Order: sequence, then structure tokens, then C-alpha cells
Amino acid sequence: MRIHPECYPCFLRQAYYTLKLVTRDEVLQEKVLKRVMEKLACYEGKDPPPKVSHLVYGTITQETGVRDPYWTKKRECNRMALGLYPRLKELVEQSDDPLLAAVKVAIAGNAIDFGVGRSFELENLEIRGEVDLVVSYYEAFKEDFQRAQTVLYIGDNAGEVVFDRVLLEVMEGKELFFAVRSGPIINDVTLEDAYEAGIDKVAQIIESGSRAPGTLLDEVTPEFKEFFWEADMVISKGQGNFETLNDAPRRVYFLLKAKCEVVANLLGVGVGDTLLIKG
Amino acid sequence: MRIHPECYPCFLRQAYYTLKLVTRDEVLQEKVLKRVMEKLACYEGKDPPPKVSHLVYGTITQETGVRDPYWTKKRECNRMALGLYPRLKELVEQSDDPLLAAVKVAIAGNAIDFGVGRSFELENLEIRGEVDLVVSYYEAFKEDFQRAQTVLYIGDNAGEVVFDRVLLEVMEGKELFFAVRSGPIINDVTLEDAYEAGIDKVAQIIESGSRAPGTLLDEVTPEFKEFFWEADMVISKGQGNFETLNDAPRRVYFLLKAKCEVVANLLGVGVGDTLLIKG
Repeated sequence: MRIHPECYPCFLRQAYYTLKLVTRDEVLQEKVLKRVMEKLACYEGKDPPPKVSHLVYGTITQETGVRDPYWTKKRECNRMALGLYPRLKELVEQSDDPLLAAVKVAIAGNAIDFGVGRSFELENLEIRGEVDLVVSYYEAFKEDFQRAQTVLYIGDNAGEVVFDRVLLEVMEGKELFFAVRSGPIINDVTLEDAYEAGIDKVAQIIESGSRAPGTLLDEVTPEFKEFFWEADMVISKGQGNFETLNDAPRRVYFLLKAKCEVVANLLGVGVGDTLLIKG
Repeated sequence: MRIHPECYPCFLRQAYYTLKLVTRDEVLQEKVLKRVMEKLACYEGKDPPPKVSHLVYGTITQETGVRDPYWTKKRECNRMALGLYPRLKELVEQSDDPLLAAVKVAIAGNAIDFGVGRSFELENLEIRGEVDLVVSYYEAFKEDFQRAQTVLYIGDNAGEVVFDRVLLEVMEGKELFFAVRSGPIINDVTLEDAYEAGIDKVAQIIESGSRAPGTLLDEVTPEFKEFFWEADMVISKGQGNFETLNDAPRRVYFLLKAKCEVVANLLGVGVGDTLLIKG
């Protein structure tokens, strides 16, 4: 999907939120915000928001020298999520349909996101797996899953990656590949997070090549591209991956929570709604 | 008070909100947002937010040709507020302390504001006059009021101006002057609004000379300046007037609702808190 006018105020809000993590120096904050606005004012493409987002966060890194503003928060998220892991496992094991229960757990994990600049309280969230799927292609998902030999699972955020592990564990027996970003961007999942979450115990971890908070197919590695086109089934987590892959000419299952008006309107749902859709 | 880094994302959000009122053309919306960012990126002053806000809204007018995007909404607000007027009057008349009740009514009216880009439902608001004044210099206000012969009341927004009328009516007997903006800016009160609200029945209406959503003392008319320095008592409504007059070297009573983090932090209160303070 292409960037929408509403994305610009959102980028600036995200930039300010990130700058607050990086520095208390208001003169520097103002300087960097102006540099971000300058870049956005000059931007003339029609790319998906995550590509432009990369420009925004890249400017913050460039101007402040801080490469990974969310590093500490990501560690904290992974630790909190790992604390919930036994409860999530139990939930899935006690379910009549463990695959569906695990899908819901994975989507519930998508509530963990700093990109949109809103706070969340993990303990209070839909972590009981009681998410309501407003739109659900679960039957098709299940059929395709049963037939699949190879599954490419494109991860989204730190913390959330522990919830993904729960879904991947239900999928054991298939050849599983878990894709992460190739560099730190917001709280998106990287190699370090995937290992911290123990994904390596259940899937092969690969880097996508994308350093944006999404999966830009014109920036991914040849290896990822092959997985993407050849895998029997592709599962994409989160809004950033949806924004960058929703037009891709192959079947992709998107598990996501609609986090802003722009995406919610595109999908015809409300902000905060959770979905399992077929792209 | 000076502009804060957090103001920039807020300006851009306001610009987008306003552009949605002006046009459905997303290409134009994007173009204007970029022009606004360009201007903000080049801005190097340390002015109060309303001065910069004037730059933002001025750019929207310049680029779209729409001089008063809120004109219709202002009419609607005045009409709705006039519908409430009998109820507000009754409330004050039944009170043991009509001056205090009217002060509370006037502050409650300050909840009507599009500038911050949040929606409001007039009917559900603190229109029952049951606002809690988190900080209140009412005793000093009352004393100064009793002594005063001339009172300058600096208005804030359309709709709200009807609530101001209720307070002005309690003040009858004094020489009352009601100041409005000299041009349309957001939903700020102008001559047209003041007349629509019937302010002319109770006070002399004057233009301040300011075309910003506040009162910039370096832009006001000589007439307003004289009123401002010579009046026995000055009452300032709303956040925009507070942001531009809080450093003025004379006693001003500010009646406002803290509408953003920046102002709430400065005042040591929470967002949404209502105050009667002495500057």
C-alpha cells in the first residue's frame, strides 16, 4: 500500500516519541524533528509507509548517533513475554483447536508495538488468547497449513516474537523458516530477539534483508526472495509487513491488529481490530 | 511561553485535521502537509506556539485558497451553545455564589476546541458547570473583581463565547470589554461569533489585532494595548491566550483547561484539568 497524507503527522509523532528515548536535550530534539520534516517535505515517492519510516528513523540515528533507540525496551519486552510463555503454552494445550488458539495468541502478541507511539500494558492485553478475529480466513489457513511442507513466517516485533514461537511450536513437523529484519528499526524483531525468544529451537531463522519496519521486496536478500516465492505457505505478522506485502502477487496470510485509521479504513475494520486475512 | 519540541507533531496533526475539512483531494492534502513541514523546518524562532500555529494555518490558506476552514463548524458551535444558554443561566441563578458558578460555566465552555484536533460532545461535557477547579485563585479573583471598574475579557473560541456571555452577565455594572481575534484562525472567536453570541448586549466588543490563536502583544492594536495595560482587571480565556500572555508583566486571571502535555507540565497539572490562575 502507498503512503497516505495521515502518515506524515504519525511519522512526526513517532519521531518525537523516539527522540524522547534518545535524549532529554530539547534543543537537539527540536533540531532533529526539523531535519525529519525537511526530509519528509522533500520526499516524493509513493512507497509503503515502512519505507518512509526507515527514512525517519534513519535521520534520527544519523543526527543523534544512536543506532538502536529501542534496544533496552526490546530486551524488556522479550523478558516480559518470556514470563508469559508458560501461560500461553498452557492456553494452547488446553484448547480443542490448538492451531486456532495459537493463531489467536500470535495475533494478541501483535499488540506489543512502540511504532505507533501508544503505550501498552502487556498484562492487561488480550494475552489470554481471547482476541476476537473480526475477519478470519482460518478455515483456508488451516487447509493450506495441513497441505504445506514449508512455511515462511515473517516476524514483526520483539516481545511479540515469543507469542510467534507458541504458534510455530504448534506447527512442528513442517519445515519452518522465521524471517527477521536485517537491522534494528523501532522495536522490530532482529536476529538477537529471535534467539532470545528461542525461535531457533523450532524454526530456522533467516534475515529478510529489509531494514525497514516491514518487508520491502525490492530490498530483500536473494535468499529471502527464494523463500518468499517458493514456500508452500507464507505467514506475515503485523501491520508493517502487511503494508509492504499486501500487493505481492502470491498468497500470504496476514495476522495483524489494525493499528491506525489508514490501515483500518483500507481493511474496512476499526482501529484495534484483529484479523487473519488472505492476501 | 516558548514553543516546545512536542508542538511540532501537534501542528502537523492539526494541519491534517484542518486539511480534511478543506478538501478530500489527498494529493493536495499531501502537498500542503509537505509545504507546512518545509515552513516548520525553516522556522528558527522561540515564539509562543500560537505564533507558529499562525504560520501553519496561514500556509493552509495560502495553498488551498480557503480562508476560514472552520466557518461552518463555528456556526454550528455557536448554535449549539446558544441552545444551552438558558440552562447555563438557570444554573448560575440558582447558585449561592453566582460569580463562582459563572466562572465554572465559562471554563467548561473552554472544552469546545478544534485546535487540539480532538472531538468533543458538547452535550456530554462539563456543561452542568460541575467542573472541578484543580487550581483556583477564586478568592483573589473575586476581590479584584469587586474593586474593578473596567474589565478586559479576552475571548477564546466560538461556541465558548456563549459561555463567556454568562460570566459577563454576572459582571454587569462594570465597564466590560470583550476582545476577539482580528481574523479567522481555527475556531477562535471573531467579531461575527461575538455578535452571534450576543456579547454586544453586555460588553463592548473590540478586536485585539491578533490573527494568531492567542494574543501576541507585539501584534495587537494600540487600542487593545491600552485596554490591556489600563484595565483594572484582565481575564484571559483558554490555552492560546495563556501561551501568549503568561509572561506579560501585569496581573492577568487565566481561565483555562490544560489541553496538552506541554502546558499541563508547565502548570504542574494533568491534561484536561481546569484552572483559574493568576499570572
